[in-house]
Amino acid sequence: MNELRTICEDGDAAHPSVLILDQTRLPAQTAFVRLTNLEQAAHAIRVMQVRGAPLIGATAAYGVALALSEGIALEQAIDVLAATRPTAVNLRWALERMRRVLEKSAVATRHDRAWQEARAIAREDAEANAAIGRHGLPRLQAVGRRPVQAMTHCNAGWLATVAHGTAIAPIYAAHDAGVAVHVWVSETRPRNQGLLTAWELAHAGIPHTLIADNAAGLLIMQGKVDLVIVGADRIAANGDTANKVGTYLKALAARAHDIPFYVAAPVSTIDFACPNGGAIPIEERDGAEFGDKVSRGDTPVANPAFDVTPAQLITGIITEQGVFPAAGLAAIKR
Amino acid sequence: MNELRTICEDGDAAHPSVLILDQTRLPAQTAFVRLTNLEQAAHAIRVMQVRGAPLIGATAAYGVALALSEGIALEQAIDVLAATRPTAVNLRWALERMRRVLEKSAVATRHDRAWQEARAIAREDAEANAAIGRHGLPRLQAVGRRPVQAMTHCNAGWLATVAHGTAIAPIYAAHDAGVAVHVWVSETRPRNQGLLTAWELAHAGIPHTLIADNAAGLLIMQGKVDLVIVGADRIAANGDTANKVGTYLKALAARAHDIPFYVAAPVSTIDFACPNGGAIPIEERDGAEFGDKVSRGDTPVANPAFDVTPAQLITGIITEQGVFPAAGLAAIKR
Repeated sequence: MNELRTICEDGDAAHPSVLILDQTRLPAQTAFVRLTNLEQAAHAIRVMQVRGAPLIGATAAYGVALALSEGIALEQAIDVLAATRPTAVNLRWALERMRRVLEKSAVATRHDRAWQEARAIAREDAEANAAIGRHGLPRLQAVGRRPVQAMTHCNAGWLATVAHGTAIAPIYAAHDAGVAVHVWVSETRPRNQGLLTAWELAHAGIPHTLIADNAAGLLIMQGKVDLVIVGADRIAANGDTANKVGTYLKALAARAHDIPFYVAAPVSTIDFACPNGGAIPIEERDGAEFGDKVSRGDTPVANPAFDVTPAQLITGIITEQGVFPAAGLAAIKR
Repeated sequence: MNELRTICEDGDAAHPSVLILDQTRLPAQTAFVRLTNLEQAAHAIRVMQVRGAPLIGATAAYGVALALSEGIALEQAIDVLAATRPTAVNLRWALERMRRVLEKSAVATRHDRAWQEARAIAREDAEANAAIGRHGLPRLQAVGRRPVQAMTHCNAGWLATVAHGTAIAPIYAAHDAGVAVHVWVSETRPRNQGLLTAWELAHAGIPHTLIADNAAGLLIMQGKVDLVIVGADRIAANGDTANKVGTYLKALAARAHDIPFYVAAPVSTIDFACPNGGAIPIEERDGAEFGDKVSRGDTPVANPAFDVTPAQLITGIITEQGVFPAAGLAAIKR
């Protein structure tokens, strides 16, 4: 199993800090950034130095701990961090967990408790993702051909989490189990997170091919894909799933050609308070993400970062508790 | 009506030449290239200085004329030009038309006849596209809201033809008729031809918004699109349509949300000898089209340039003879 980490504690009791892999520099450079205060943690989430719903949650938890180390009030820290990204539910989930635990703590121990809880959130994410890998593995083993032809979108590998990844966790598990897999990696415009997935897979020695997002329909029509597996930024109670924009188009193509479409995510990604996809806010990001060619001109740009895949297009949701039908999330232990 | 031309004759009887707008320089620069021989014409098609099925056909016809001016044999010229791009049927169609006409010509008049026929192909393309605009206009007028929200893919505007465009011709016609239209312009990775469409629309004063290809499904789901209209590189006899890769995903989304999906193309784009989409060759282009970020690394890339939209997803095919159901192309006069 891939043991690489995107985030880890650094510094000491007197000068606590958190080290993150700066994903805006990948794949060209492997560079780390040291977070020493609330504002740096919020900035890292906002500009996507850390990205991927689970990693955003863990970073936000450490952001609360850093804020308390600075002497900033808990509520203020939560407000600043909650405002960084609107769609990923793990952000809210991690902040609510920190609030719940810390409100119960005596003021004298609150600071230590914050670091302890952030550490627990990070550790549990890594464990949950390893379990997602184990639960997803049989779905890849069940495919008749070798290599299994998997397609993914965006990056839901270890880079999007504390460790192991979500959508890519079953692929790592298959690779470890000796099941040959080839991954079709979608470029994922406008931010090209597919390059991160390609980088991850190359480092792990897993065969893969980068494609334009536009090519997904053709490849599925041509029978070159056995299953699609993606991560999630928020799953509504009815199973509708928000994930990186473009996911929905892949789900439509998978359904048109009757291949499985899986969502892999920890239970913390499920927002039981959100009834359906229509209630999920969709983050609109800056048009500058399209790159110089576009942003230099005066072309008007719309840049929604996520879309919603209806539950009925999802074959199964792979969690650390097992694989659930999208319409059957109520069975999950919260 | 927009009267701008992508290709026009230049030079004189002693030194005949053809001037083309170099589309690889757009939108940053408006630069022209003078074609004076067969090899330059073939190169222009191959590297996509000219692009779009109808314009490729006209350029190939002029390529034959240039070859005869050089003293190159007709068959050799046709072989060189036919090898430039595999998917666009207009290329083959224009070359077959040149062959048919020139084989009947006396050797003494063949050279003049070639220029005459290339000129006719170019003129007829402009006329056909103007007619496509007229026939498509009522489909936009029939939409209840203003501005009409149209979505297109790639560039099928005047830049893809000799003049007027195919998919964009009805939009120009609507604009001329005072029907307010807003166009969602898909970036069209990996070559970003959406930037050409945005450039065209900006010059024509037609409101538009550039989006990532990935955003098409979300916008359609959100009810922000009234109809999708695209061009075609080859239409099979059964109505299956090859167009720029990514078209199929938009057709799936249009069907999922029950909005019309139109293909606009001259009759010359219909390959009555091709029974269905499965028989259309799909051009695989170089991975370098993804740009420096990808091609600098050693990431394996697949880059199919077209996909096939099944006839049953197409609401109508808008031609210069009128709008036909995709399953009803046999009614068209060849």
